Amino acid sequence: MNIDALDTPTLAADLDVLERNINGMATHCHQLGIPLRVHTKTHKVPEIAKLQIAAGSQGITCQKLGEAEVMVDAGIDDILIPYNIVGKPKLKRLTALVQRARITVALDSEETATGISQQAIADGCVVPVIVELDTGSGRCGVQSPQAAQHLAQQIMKTQGIDFQGIMTYPSNRRAKPFIQETLDLLSSDGIPVNIISGGGTGSEAASKDIGCTETRSGSYVYEGITRIGNSEMLTPERCVLRVIVTVVSTPTPDRIIIDGGQKTFTSYPPTPYGHIVEHPDAKIYGMSVEHGHVNVSECSHQFKVGEQLSVIPLHQGMTSNLHDTLVGVRGDKVEVTWKIAGRGKVF
Amino acid sequence: MNIDALDTPTLAADLDVLERNINGMATHCHQLGIPLRVHTKTHKVPEIAKLQIAAGSQGITCQKLGEAEVMVDAGIDDILIPYNIVGKPKLKRLTALVQRARITVALDSEETATGISQQAIADGCVVPVIVELDTGSGRCGVQSPQAAQHLAQQIMKTQGIDFQGIMTYPSNRRAKPFIQETLDLLSSDGIPVNIISGGGTGSEAASKDIGCTETRSGSYVYEGITRIGNSEMLTPERCVLRVIVTVVSTPTPDRIIIDGGQKTFTSYPPTPYGHIVEHPDAKIYGMSVEHGHVNVSECSHQFKVGEQLSVIPLHQGMTSNLHDTLVGVRGDKVEVTWKIAGRGKVF
Repeated sequence: MNIDALDTPTLAADLDVLERNINGMATHCHQLGIPLRVHTKTHKVPEIAKLQIAAGSQGITCQKLGEAEVMVDAGIDDILIPYNIVGKPKLKRLTALVQRARITVALDSEETATGISQQAIADGCVVPVIVELDTGSGRCGVQSPQAAQHLAQQIMKTQGIDFQGIMTYPSNRRAKPFIQETLDLLSSDGIPVNIISGGGTGSEAASKDIGCTETRSGSYVYEGITRIGNSEMLTPERCVLRVIVTVVSTPTPDRIIIDGGQKTFTSYPPTPYGHIVEHPDAKIYGMSVEHGHVNVSECSHQFKVGEQLSVIPLHQGMTSNLHDTLVGVRGDKVEVTWKIAGRGKVF
Repeated sequence: MNIDALDTPTLAADLDVLERNINGMATHCHQLGIPLRVHTKTHKVPEIAKLQIAAGSQGITCQKLGEAEVMVDAGIDDILIPYNIVGKPKLKRLTALVQRARITVALDSEETATGISQQAIADGCVVPVIVELDTGSGRCGVQSPQAAQHLAQQIMKTQGIDFQGIMTYPSNRRAKPFIQETLDLLSSDGIPVNIISGGGTGSEAASKDIGCTETRSGSYVYEGITRIGNSEMLTPERCVLRVIVTVVSTPTPDRIIIDGGQKTFTSYPPTPYGHIVEHPDAKIYGMSVEHGHVNVSECSHQFKVGEQLSVIPLHQGMTSNLHDTLVGVRGDKVEVTWKIAGRGKVF
């Protein structure tokens, strides 16, 4: 099928660019000498995760348990969940999943460790865990090397969980002393560290420098305005995603309306919403829930109702999360349709 | 089931408040003497649309064709789609739907009118249409009463489409002269006007005042911070939706982390993200994709990992659009689970 026969708005991936990005990061990490454990939150598509593994990723990262379940269902068998798993329903799902694949989870508190331990004992399994360090993100994570040491000691004494190492986010050189001091303390206790997990896209060299054993790079797979910047570097050669939209109204000479709004593109942040590939001078200046409002006063092109446009969305991961399917295109041809199977797995 | 047994983050609706809001708007419109045609974009749940119809709504409004298909599948038979239907795939779906239920569509151009007409003729049906006026929204819509007259004249001469009237958004008194002049022009042409559709929530009296035959009120069904304001009026007595979340980390004395972020709440606008019912002094100050960051420095309560909280989301419709299911709760009991069947129907 040709892309102009698609109903709109449709989320599409340029397969040539996708493959280039996947292979490029694999080569980059290989050259740096740091293994890749791709973060799949950006795409949530098992088939893309498999392309990344085929290119050399040693496994994947899923931000939510429900996403990991989808990936295991698709046959992927080595997953890190860098998220505190809390509450009875999730703990039971976690131990079920641990019995189907190699699942490692991060945690930052004795409460989380105890919850996982008790469920694992009840279900007769052992859950590999790593301790999250807050080396600058100000989100989750223990606050000091001493706290990391203390939690690791508790984990070592606890049945049902198996201490595997530590993780940090983001990877940067400020994290280096925190990690090194933690490693020294664990070494003095004789606690082995198999995993030092870092991330994400753009911090591969830093992850290597601070001693990480893997990098959880994710957003590189699609690239986008938010990382490349809204500059001359933002070209179709770098960005994978397109939202194919249709002009549904041309109410005034300086305004056209497209059939994608906040529920197609997400609402974050307010501008520039997206980049219209065919007419970069046409600026999306606003979005209501289902309409995109485009200023075409700088364009010589005469837009017509029914015309299709390709928009590079601003926030790749948030946009993907609004769509059930992703069509893979090569040139003007639709080559494949993938289900975004991890979409909506908020649990 | 008790709500504390729910996996999180879960979208929940307080059924008592939902029923109160539905009945309150029905009474309000009845007293004003303006029929209600509820807009379902906020909830996208056929069962809630049926509650609204049972309370007196004369039909529903769906922003997208795909949502209308879901509602017709559920047995609802009178739907306005206030959206230009453009492109072959959609036109074929539209004529199929018109043969199953009373579907009226809005349009603002001869191109859209011609497209619908040609498909309707090919499929042997007639599509009722109304002309959208841009009376101040600066989005779609014809720009003058003369343009509305001209388009109505064209529609009257075109087979396969049946001119039914006009619509405006938003309803306000500035729209009154635009509508009145349009009606005068159509009257002078002998073109009958059956429908003058207005909206939305909060503009019912204005819609009546400017002569509308119906109001497309929608967001009243849930209410929320964006309309009520983040004041003492924002109470659980007014707002239907809750996102039930779990505290997954308490990394510092002044910060807790909940298991809902931008993919649970949406990312619009940046603050305050949501209102924590149990602890209004706890402020959600940031969100990453799957984590909510909460400042608890003003709270005397000692938060614990595993504790559940109820958050009134900021943008009801955008939040709903991220979830596959909605649980209806009464008090602490889960009474029903609804599929958000219209979610993701961006086509």
